[in-house]
Amino acid sequence: MNNDSLIKYILGIADNSLILGQRLGELTGHGPTLEVDIAMTNISLDLFGQVRSYFQYAAQLSEEDKTEDDFAFLRTEREYVNVLLVEQPNRDFAYTIARQFLFDHFHFLLLNELQNSKDETLVAIAKKSLKEASYHRRFSSDWIKRLGDGTEESNRKIQLAINDLWRFTEELFHKTKADIEAIKEGVGVDTDKLKEKYLANVAEVLEEATLQKPVLEFFQEGGKKGIHSEHMGYLLSDMQYMQRTYPGMKW
Amino acid sequence: MNNDSLIKYILGIADNSLILGQRLGELTGHGPTLEVDIAMTNISLDLFGQVRSYFQYAAQLSEEDKTEDDFAFLRTEREYVNVLLVEQPNRDFAYTIARQFLFDHFHFLLLNELQNSKDETLVAIAKKSLKEASYHRRFSSDWIKRLGDGTEESNRKIQLAINDLWRFTEELFHKTKADIEAIKEGVGVDTDKLKEKYLANVAEVLEEATLQKPVLEFFQEGGKKGIHSEHMGYLLSDMQYMQRTYPGMKW
Repeated sequence: MNNDSLIKYILGIADNSLILGQRLGELTGHGPTLEVDIAMTNISLDLFGQVRSYFQYAAQLSEEDKTEDDFAFLRTEREYVNVLLVEQPNRDFAYTIARQFLFDHFHFLLLNELQNSKDETLVAIAKKSLKEASYHRRFSSDWIKRLGDGTEESNRKIQLAINDLWRFTEELFHKTKADIEAIKEGVGVDTDKLKEKYLANVAEVLEEATLQKPVLEFFQEGGKKGIHSEHMGYLLSDMQYMQRTYPGMKW
Repeated sequence: MNNDSLIKYILGIADNSLILGQRLGELTGHGPTLEVDIAMTNISLDLFGQVRSYFQYAAQLSEEDKTEDDFAFLRTEREYVNVLLVEQPNRDFAYTIARQFLFDHFHFLLLNELQNSKDETLVAIAKKSLKEASYHRRFSSDWIKRLGDGTEESNRKIQLAINDLWRFTEELFHKTKADIEAIKEGVGVDTDKLKEKYLANVAEVLEEATLQKPVLEFFQEGGKKGIHSEHMGYLLSDMQYMQRTYPGMKW
């Protein structure tokens, strides 16, 4: 596959981590407790670290003279291809945990498969990131159980968050043109093959948490095609502020 | 010394890390580059980690039924005893680095001495934190040199920040009643003994950075007595939002 398609495939993975990392970063210093605050910020940092690896690789592949920071900060809204799930706002702690949980279970399975890619750089990034994603998945799943099987109020709030965010889960498995090409080349992960396992894993945690698995007929999509929810613009203007205000800031 | 005085002595150290960590946390996702963003957030996390150790110890000592989070989130402005330096706003990257630099050099020397305390818990925290503080000091000093010895603009901005923040450095060495008591008991660090070394170390970096060491006759103080600058209220209302909105939030 040509470099442009490979870059697109990479962004399809990296942007999820970038935008979710940004959302979690908004919480630094605002966690409900010091312990949770530190844990969430650590997850944010893990994700940013992964993003750097992906964007550095994309920068190498790029024929223009781009840097990792160009990829991170200097695209327009339509050029980010993260799923809608990760751009959803924090709202409350239950939302933040539910979003993390629904993403982590996908992320873990994706990286696990990406280890079999024919692209050696992606294999190396996947191996390194998998340990982190595995920790994230345990963290968010534990909180799902604690909240679901907690007080009446915590159960109600986390069920509400799961119900509301469920409509974004289907998009995790959608394939862009770049995805399809990458799969054909043995570089990309065929997300169809992850779906059954994802639903089973998620269902298992929800059951242990005494929560209902939502049943939905209609799902939301768009992010992977660059069509984002109304929240994305605010997130980007916040995230891009420094680079836009001081273009090419190098000091 | 009685537990109340020891708690006060501990807060005098911990609050600096708490408030500086909070300031750095505001930058998560807003760094000028991914690399710097991650580095600053890591420093913030180190500081919060140290804060937890101090507050957990303070909670043990407390005769009331207090937790680490009560100490972190549920005091009024007048009850925080951090120095004015650390509560100063980020303004721009130069300010953030200058504030960090002026604090780190103090912090390193303080922890280094705290290793000789008669209080074993403080010795353990100091030993663990010293490695981190040493890394922070290297990070901020390297940036001082890079900015000072960089472009004309970066030199101008960092010199401005150093000049402006210099008036807060004297307070680092002031002693509260609790400090004096802790020194007498062999528990606390006599900051008088750090000052000469501090000024020499800071001057050395500034010189290498081709920056001027400011000369000042009048310094600002107040934070250690709970009398804070106008910025502190905003910082606290931001930091305390979750705990104030959901008191005793445990889920």
